[in-house]
Amino acid sequence: MGSSVIDRSMVEQIVRQVALEYLRKGANGSAPVLTVQTSSRHMHVCREDMDVLFGPGSELTFDRPLFQEGNFAAKETVTIVGPRNRLISNLLGIDEIPIRLSGDIAGTPGAIIIGPKGVVELKQGVIRAAIHAHMNPAEAAHFGVSQGERMKLRIGGEAGLTFNNVHVRIDKASRLNVHMDTDEANACGLHLTKDIELFK
Amino acid sequence: MGSSVIDRSMVEQIVRQVALEYLRKGANGSAPVLTVQTSSRHMHVCREDMDVLFGPGSELTFDRPLFQEGNFAAKETVTIVGPRNRLISNLLGIDEIPIRLSGDIAGTPGAIIIGPKGVVELKQGVIRAAIHAHMNPAEAAHFGVSQGERMKLRIGGEAGLTFNNVHVRIDKASRLNVHMDTDEANACGLHLTKDIELFK
Repeated sequence: MGSSVIDRSMVEQIVRQVALEYLRKGANGSAPVLTVQTSSRHMHVCREDMDVLFGPGSELTFDRPLFQEGNFAAKETVTIVGPRNRLISNLLGIDEIPIRLSGDIAGTPGAIIIGPKGVVELKQGVIRAAIHAHMNPAEAAHFGVSQGERMKLRIGGEAGLTFNNVHVRIDKASRLNVHMDTDEANACGLHLTKDIELFK
Repeated sequence: MGSSVIDRSMVEQIVRQVALEYLRKGANGSAPVLTVQTSSRHMHVCREDMDVLFGPGSELTFDRPLFQEGNFAAKETVTIVGPRNRLISNLLGIDEIPIRLSGDIAGTPGAIIIGPKGVVELKQGVIRAAIHAHMNPAEAAHFGVSQGERMKLRIGGEAGLTFNNVHVRIDKASRLNVHMDTDEANACGLHLTKDIELFK
């Protein structure tokens, strides 16, 4: 293998080109890179409930980073008791869990949450997360979609299927990324294919 | 409420009309009634393996009828050991279970099957059943499809999706009926909607 020397101005020029190309891709309509992730069972928890479940002033322990900047999965877990007093890992005993986006919990079923330090009775908040696509405004512009619109996600391969109700969630801090649940990922054989397409 | 008497010839005429209409529906293109069923984990077992697993000359015990004429689910169960020596109900330890139609097992992974009376080592036969539509020739003619072709199945509702690879299985003893697995049924919220459409 040979080696070569390049001077500072050439490095600057290359960096500038790459940076410009990168910015253009986000802004002018070239296809942004799509990633799809699977969300398993999880809970979003507020400060007040943290105090009860894990102790006053307790903090979540970082387990692993999630795709969206600053988001992470925590090591802490809880036990959930559904309306039929079932202690559940797989089965909540709720016949029809409403399909909602995170945070949209008005009128949804409640549950009892048991942590190592205490118990919280949720009056509402149990949902099945609707499949959704996070994206920033430039990515939304690329697809021509606006907040709350629905898109389609086609997964190829032998178990191929098309999700027809992918909710669009736009945030300037987001990176293009689809979240589906484990049933959806298993159904479409997500791990078996790279033939994936998001479209309006 | 009043009542009325109708004579035998009128009854015959009505029966004839209804029967003709029924036959026409099967033959000339009116939409046949579509049902969709979920198949959970199950095993198809031959006589020879029955003898080993459940004893010589043993017979399966009827548990409940299945949609297709004469088919039934049996009360008998077995335990499966996957290649990593895991005793499994949920997880076989097989990374990529091939997606196949029942019976199409050449080159698929094997497993050890444990019954109450003995053990069978399957050299092959572990599959994830591909989503498929059973139908008779008249129903196939209605859709304009032939044996082995793929169709689409659209499930409406909030978790709506379209299965793009529904295998066509034609048999004159069949009644129109789609079989999907539990992951697929959960993913599409099959129990939540009646807005279901099978098309070419």
